Amino acid sequence: MKNLEIIKGGVTAPKGYKAAGVSCGIKKSKKKDLAIIYSEKNSVAFCSLTTNVVKAAPLQYNKEIISKSDVFQAILINSGNANSCTGEKGFQNAKITAELLAEKIDISPEKILLASTGLIGEQLPMEFIGKGISEAVDSLNKEGGKDAAEAILTTDTFVKEIAVKLNLSGREVIIGAMAKGAGMINPNLATMLGFVTTDAVISKDLLGIISKKCVEESFNLISVDGDMSTNDQVIIMANGKAGNNLIESETDTKCFKDGLLFVLKKLASMIVKDGEGATKFIKIKIKGCLSKDSAKKIGLTIANSLLVKTAFYGEDVNWGRIMNSMGSSGVDFNQNEVEIWFENIKIVQNGEKANFNKEDAENILKQKEIEVIIDLNQGSEEAEVLTTDLSKEYVEFNSRYST
Amino acid sequence: MKNLEIIKGGVTAPKGYKAAGVSCGIKKSKKKDLAIIYSEKNSVAFCSLTTNVVKAAPLQYNKEIISKSDVFQAILINSGNANSCTGEKGFQNAKITAELLAEKIDISPEKILLASTGLIGEQLPMEFIGKGISEAVDSLNKEGGKDAAEAILTTDTFVKEIAVKLNLSGREVIIGAMAKGAGMINPNLATMLGFVTTDAVISKDLLGIISKKCVEESFNLISVDGDMSTNDQVIIMANGKAGNNLIESETDTKCFKDGLLFVLKKLASMIVKDGEGATKFIKIKIKGCLSKDSAKKIGLTIANSLLVKTAFYGEDVNWGRIMNSMGSSGVDFNQNEVEIWFENIKIVQNGEKANFNKEDAENILKQKEIEVIIDLNQGSEEAEVLTTDLSKEYVEFNSRYST
Repeated sequence: MKNLEIIKGGVTAPKGYKAAGVSCGIKKSKKKDLAIIYSEKNSVAFCSLTTNVVKAAPLQYNKEIISKSDVFQAILINSGNANSCTGEKGFQNAKITAELLAEKIDISPEKILLASTGLIGEQLPMEFIGKGISEAVDSLNKEGGKDAAEAILTTDTFVKEIAVKLNLSGREVIIGAMAKGAGMINPNLATMLGFVTTDAVISKDLLGIISKKCVEESFNLISVDGDMSTNDQVIIMANGKAGNNLIESETDTKCFKDGLLFVLKKLASMIVKDGEGATKFIKIKIKGCLSKDSAKKIGLTIANSLLVKTAFYGEDVNWGRIMNSMGSSGVDFNQNEVEIWFENIKIVQNGEKANFNKEDAENILKQKEIEVIIDLNQGSEEAEVLTTDLSKEYVEFNSRYST
Repeated sequence: MKNLEIIKGGVTAPKGYKAAGVSCGIKKSKKKDLAIIYSEKNSVAFCSLTTNVVKAAPLQYNKEIISKSDVFQAILINSGNANSCTGEKGFQNAKITAELLAEKIDISPEKILLASTGLIGEQLPMEFIGKGISEAVDSLNKEGGKDAAEAILTTDTFVKEIAVKLNLSGREVIIGAMAKGAGMINPNLATMLGFVTTDAVISKDLLGIISKKCVEESFNLISVDGDMSTNDQVIIMANGKAGNNLIESETDTKCFKDGLLFVLKKLASMIVKDGEGATKFIKIKIKGCLSKDSAKKIGLTIANSLLVKTAFYGEDVNWGRIMNSMGSSGVDFNQNEVEIWFENIKIVQNGEKANFNKEDAENILKQKEIEVIIDLNQGSEEAEVLTTDLSKEYVEFNSRYST
């Protein structure tokens, strides 16, 4: 039995979870727009909310619930309407949806967490949601992960789910997950929803510590357009159905952390690959920094630079724009020690143009996936940031679509 | 005699200045690419350099010179080549250009400041520059301001110059100026060159204090694409030829400061209007903040949001994206107290959609120039940020052009 193995499925892959995804009419397109994840057993949970000062109603609701409740059993998610900037009425509507679900599945409303994504500034169409909750509860099932993963999408072009099997001291533990992304993807969970289920036996505190670190190293290191949404959150539930020994030992903790990080990184990478109008997937590795934070800061500044992004779109070997952008990140470094590679071709040496073949470099830029490596030659810390190019299609798309 | 009057001309409008702009062959297009501003008399000067950690050779050179010299007589500027990321050779080349000019006009090289703009990463074509300096010195003249203003442009579509006449306690003082902008315009002087000349009698210290404040309130509050260049600088020279009493009194100080701020704001606004691929000019006024810094921070976050910029391009009343972006600025505020206006139409009230006519709001977005007013209702501080929309033309342009 290997330590980590990818298996089929998503949020219903671990033991004791059911899910459903239905179309209740929020989306005019009649696509699925309401999802439920349900755990048969009480679960501990971790909830990472957007750092945006403007928080959508479901996030305000979760913040309150998380401070009161210790155990959870369900997550209710709708797409097509963000329930954001909707004032007191929006908050009351969020609360009512939790109560409707609670009544239907006969649990306390305090065991339910909420998430919404879609258009900002419109009240939830409550008549549709009530009906949707009923239908979704009726169709909750062990194979419902895929339907749920479909129902949380907005402008995404593909379903994002993954599951892995871990070996925790001889016991099989499963982590399943689904996400939605597309536009507005930036660190701090911008317009990103992530839902992770596991059957591991783990304390609330340790789940919190591990989850926080893993989110930091995955979802918070991706960027499509540098914007951050009012609705972003990652919720991680653990219901203990695997029956493993409580995760405490260093080996078990490491194994679980590695598994969770693997799952979150996969989701993050799927989200970037599905970035609106993106034609290229770019991995930026920043090496030789004095601190991990500096490495992240430089990586994210480059990832958010319009000039760098358009140069990648144009397949233009424009390393000056990378130097430019690095220098404006707020991190101090010696420009004369910078090295930059496109894959295995050294483009910059000692902060100046290296001796490379232009055609070889251009061929790398023609690839769909490109790795850029930057070495500051200062220290030994590093970070890896994922991003996309900026295309005319992005502008076209985002000048038409109301989000 | 009014306190402030706009007059014809640019950097040669004040007494005692000559200028020239020639084509020496750096630009393959044969457009003008080398400019000189020359003061007959020793001048005090203020020099604001980019905060980019990566600094071009002429900026490294100026930093050194400014720390050694007290008086200046000339500025040498080339376009078409940034002399950035060019290492020790680039620095020596910069030094040689100052020496060539010094010899030709017979002053000490320590009285010369340098500026370059254009492609990053290529060495200066010294053979062209030597010839260019000779020609430019020979054609220095009192009417040369316009030629100089032309010679500093890169992707700009129009010449940016302005001059004003001030009344300082009954004495006429003139401020003249020119600038270049276009892409990569962001706070902290991104790819922006500004040159200001005045015949005022003013101490080096007071010139420095006033200039710093005025740059902060003008060039540092504009943004086209959020990028910052390695070459940005603003140089302000004062040669004292107006013969006014040394500026010391509160009235004179205020009058000079108002004049300089007016000039810099006009240049800043011209730069934004000439932003690459921009179809709209957007003034964002942030009111009711607890501090001016918070107001600036929110304004610049909105100005740099791709989603907000594309919504303006698409003439889409997408106020949710503005709320989104405000919330991610790092400034704390109560989302339920936010008001947003497009011109005189209230779009958001108490952080929710206000009761407005959609067609009226759309008509405002069809304008070429749009004012957006945001009130946090927290305090009494405010700031005004200038920006543009983000168009398909921007992406097209910047995916082709190597900068």
